[in-house]
Amino acid sequence: MTKSVPTQPAWPRNAWYVACTPDELGDKPLGRKICDESMVFYRGEDGKVAALEDFCPHRGAPLSLGFVRDGALVCGYHGLVMGCTGRAHSMPGQRVQGFPSIRAFPAIERYGFVWVWPGDAELADPAKLHPLPWAESDEWAYGGGLFHIACDYRLMIDNLMDLTHETYVHASSIGQREIDEAPVATRVEGDDVVTSRTMQSVQAPPFWRMALRHAGLPDDQPVDRWQICRFSLPSHVMIEVGVALEGRGGYEADPSAKASSIVVDFITPETEHSHWYFWGMARQFAVNDPAVTASVREGQGKIFSEDLAMLEQQQVNLLRYPDRRLLKLNIDAGSVRARMMIDRAIAAETATARVAAE
Amino acid sequence: MTKSVPTQPAWPRNAWYVACTPDELGDKPLGRKICDESMVFYRGEDGKVAALEDFCPHRGAPLSLGFVRDGALVCGYHGLVMGCTGRAHSMPGQRVQGFPSIRAFPAIERYGFVWVWPGDAELADPAKLHPLPWAESDEWAYGGGLFHIACDYRLMIDNLMDLTHETYVHASSIGQREIDEAPVATRVEGDDVVTSRTMQSVQAPPFWRMALRHAGLPDDQPVDRWQICRFSLPSHVMIEVGVALEGRGGYEADPSAKASSIVVDFITPETEHSHWYFWGMARQFAVNDPAVTASVREGQGKIFSEDLAMLEQQQVNLLRYPDRRLLKLNIDAGSVRARMMIDRAIAAETATARVAAE
Amino acid sequence: MTKSVPTQPAWPRNAWYVACTPDELGDKPLGRKICDESMVFYRGEDGKVAALEDFCPHRGAPLSLGFVRDGALVCGYHGLVMGCTGRAHSMPGQRVQGFPSIRAFPAIERYGFVWVWPGDAELADPAKLHPLPWAESDEWAYGGGLFHIACDYRLMIDNLMDLTHETYVHASSIGQREIDEAPVATRVEGDDVVTSRTMQSVQAPPFWRMALRHAGLPDDQPVDRWQICRFSLPSHVMIEVGVALEGRGGYEADPSAKASSIVVDFITPETEHSHWYFWGMARQFAVNDPAVTASVREGQGKIFSEDLAMLEQQQVNLLRYPDRRLLKLNIDAGSVRARMMIDRAIAAETATARVAAE
Repeated sequence: MTKSVPTQPAWPRNAWYVACTPDELGDKPLGRKICDESMVFYRGEDGKVAALEDFCPHRGAPLSLGFVRDGALVCGYHGLVMGCTGRAHSMPGQRVQGFPSIRAFPAIERYGFVWVWPGDAELADPAKLHPLPWAESDEWAYGGGLFHIACDYRLMIDNLMDLTHETYVHASSIGQREIDEAPVATRVEGDDVVTSRTMQSVQAPPFWRMALRHAGLPDDQPVDRWQICRFSLPSHVMIEVGVALEGRGGYEADPSAKASSIVVDFITPETEHSHWYFWGMARQFAVNDPAVTASVREGQGKIFSEDLAMLEQQQVNLLRYPDRRLLKLNIDAGSVRARMMIDRAIAAETATARVAAE
Repeated sequence: MTKSVPTQPAWPRNAWYVACTPDELGDKPLGRKICDESMVFYRGEDGKVAALEDFCPHRGAPLSLGFVRDGALVCGYHGLVMGCTGRAHSMPGQRVQGFPSIRAFPAIERYGFVWVWPGDAELADPAKLHPLPWAESDEWAYGGGLFHIACDYRLMIDNLMDLTHETYVHASSIGQREIDEAPVATRVEGDDVVTSRTMQSVQAPPFWRMALRHAGLPDDQPVDRWQICRFSLPSHVMIEVGVALEGRGGYEADPSAKASSIVVDFITPETEHSHWYFWGMARQFAVNDPAVTASVREGQGKIFSEDLAMLEQQQVNLLRYPDRRLLKLNIDAGSVRARMMIDRAIAAETATARVAAE
Repeated sequence: MTKSVPTQPAWPRNAWYVACTPDELGDKPLGRKICDESMVFYRGEDGKVAALEDFCPHRGAPLSLGFVRDGALVCGYHGLVMGCTGRAHSMPGQRVQGFPSIRAFPAIERYGFVWVWPGDAELADPAKLHPLPWAESDEWAYGGGLFHIACDYRLMIDNLMDLTHETYVHASSIGQREIDEAPVATRVEGDDVVTSRTMQSVQAPPFWRMALRHAGLPDDQPVDRWQICRFSLPSHVMIEVGVALEGRGGYEADPSAKASSIVVDFITPETEHSHWYFWGMARQFAVNDPAVTASVREGQGKIFSEDLAMLEQQQVNLLRYPDRRLLKLNIDAGSVRARMMIDRAIAAETATARVAAE
């Protein structure tokens, strides 16, 4: 017997996505749509993060308009108290045993992020979290932000897996002509896709001159520059970037001769045509200087807002011409392979669902 | 022979709805959509209120962009003059006898409101107006306002027929824990639904302490509090509310021992997912003090704007999950029965229309 | 063999439309949708205007977010350089010979406007440009502006081919009761439709009193006034307007006894329910006084913004009642015939396309 199976989704469901940052979860619950699911996040018992469907089983009010009391989520309309498993806990003057449950989503707080698993709860394994060693090391500092962007999350992956665009979109900060001219190399490592580019003996652009100064290095000499973009399922892109004094080994140079960081990109689908973009930078220079964190964060925010306008307009254009095929050039190899990884993960989930439905 | 009959509407059509307040009808006509009909309201001959379709039969311009001259509505585009029956009256250089008519809607100004009948004009009977004796009495004062709310008008009826929500939505003004704890009693009186709740020996919340002071009563003693919500077709909810000094008979107490008022709610559908909410309070304390009217009005406006956010988000959620059944608890009995009254009225109109069409 | 033919379009495609004014084309390219085509305009080699589809063949980004370098349009995302014929010219590190082309639209800069031909490029003939002799004469001055209006471009043509509306929409500036009372005469001249109205011995309204003063004429005496509206395909309306001292021949009066001008209206469809309205006035009084140009422009802008509100609301109303037929009065004869010209032009294009497809 065959039951109906959902149509091809636009993202893998059985994966950990970044849902929010801990500072977004204060006293009030947080409502956020992720992978087309309206969710409410809050700190339950012992301050542990919980995620539920944002829908009160009594009258359908959003639970995110409610409040947290004694580690339980209270609906702000008529006071139904929800437990973190999605079962009604209590309601003044009512017996709640027979109330319908709502979905609870596995959620974890780690590495300075709150992660959620939109798919089958039984498959949610904390061991599958994307490892972020720098997030637990004193030798690194991190700062970042969040944008809501009205385009398919995959357009952002395309953007980040081909940094050629820096020359054009970010001409005044991190772009430079030599990026265009350097060939890219793309390889697959397990489920990851890595695309890299190195530039020998170039002038450092403004951002990197700043970084060199903070690292105690001269900012007016030729450098070797690298960009190593790593895509991981479901939709994370970590980009190792840096400059080393010329001829000192580039990416492999001794730490005393280089300035480097990791551009951190968690790209969480909201709907098919919008996403939450958690961006940031983990750096190994001036790690104890909060002013540098603030300044890097501000600069990065400006740079990434330049992408935002381009991506949202690109989305509008693509929706106008749904049948037009785009080019897949050598510079697009990274994003083409990343999309293949995504498609393969979706197909595997769909096949599993079909088997389970038979 | 069977003609086509409109599909099940979302509201009774043959009923008087509040359309606007007289102060909204100045020199300019007023355009307002009511029960999915675009209407224009203006003062015709002798200042009498008239309501027409907001559509000029010449070129389709909205008549509400025009002006009133000598008691006739003049289209602001090319000067077609409409009579209050929906027939063209005149037009410079034109013979208008053959012009198509537009609909005229029965309209009445009474009790401080303008009422309109969106259904069959022949059935419009002023005697069917909802009686508002307090509106014509010197012993009462009234103040109110108007909100446009993006939700089904029935969600507002639900809201008003279950005041449990006061504890949560209006915690800082009229809510108090004892509301939750007091059982509700629901009864049907003819076409009306009445749901009531009494609280014995409670502390008066801030609003009622203010009212007690204005009534010349102590505000720091226990009181007996009551809430009697009365739904009348098509969509009116009058709520008798008050407090009496403890043990003096509550609702039945002598006027010298209590402070009371009527929360007035006229809920006029605009579209299936939006409505006009005319709210106000008729009170029997400090009736000659306009400062109290202003203060009560301001406080009530703040309280009702708390409902607005909740209701609009509830609507969004319900549209996301159209197939999900909501719970009907004992506290929901009033709204459940009110909706039954509405459904019955709609069904009766539909049956009549079907017979007429045969 | 019959191929599929597009459904009936809402405008002639094989015609010159005003796309923008030269001052809108500075260093940055300009993105504008015209006749439902997303176009990008820029100055190519030698400053010559070019128009392309606003879609980069690489990844679909809008080319209008890019920049112009050495007379070529560079995509602002990854640097693809487009030639003005719609073929990719170059891209860093890429061979572009096999890249798909995008559409190039014939474009001409003349008479102070940039014109574009949205239809078949082979048919684009500069000789078919609407002649504007005043635009190349020292005896005339011109000033104008641009509005984006959310209504079918044909509603604007209706508006301009029946100036009865001036009495109502523009009561305080150019309207006067006598417009209503004067009969209109409508005639067809080739593909043009001309509708005219004269008023004998009237008081000049404010705008024309100003014009009389600038022409060195008394502004307090009766005048003969004329309005001659001329529609030309695809959607241009030129209106000769003026006043002459009473009894001096009206429109035919000696220039020393009159003040006159041409209201210039280029009405360019954007979508089926929106258009670009290029409005202005070419005048023969005070031609060397830029302050008069500024003042006339400001006044005209105010007057035309009164039409804007009416037209957008009329469009909303018409979409609500798609089946309701509008009246075609004698005052509507000009617009009725103009629409017949448009329909005929569309039908001729459709027939040609059908023959070509067979």
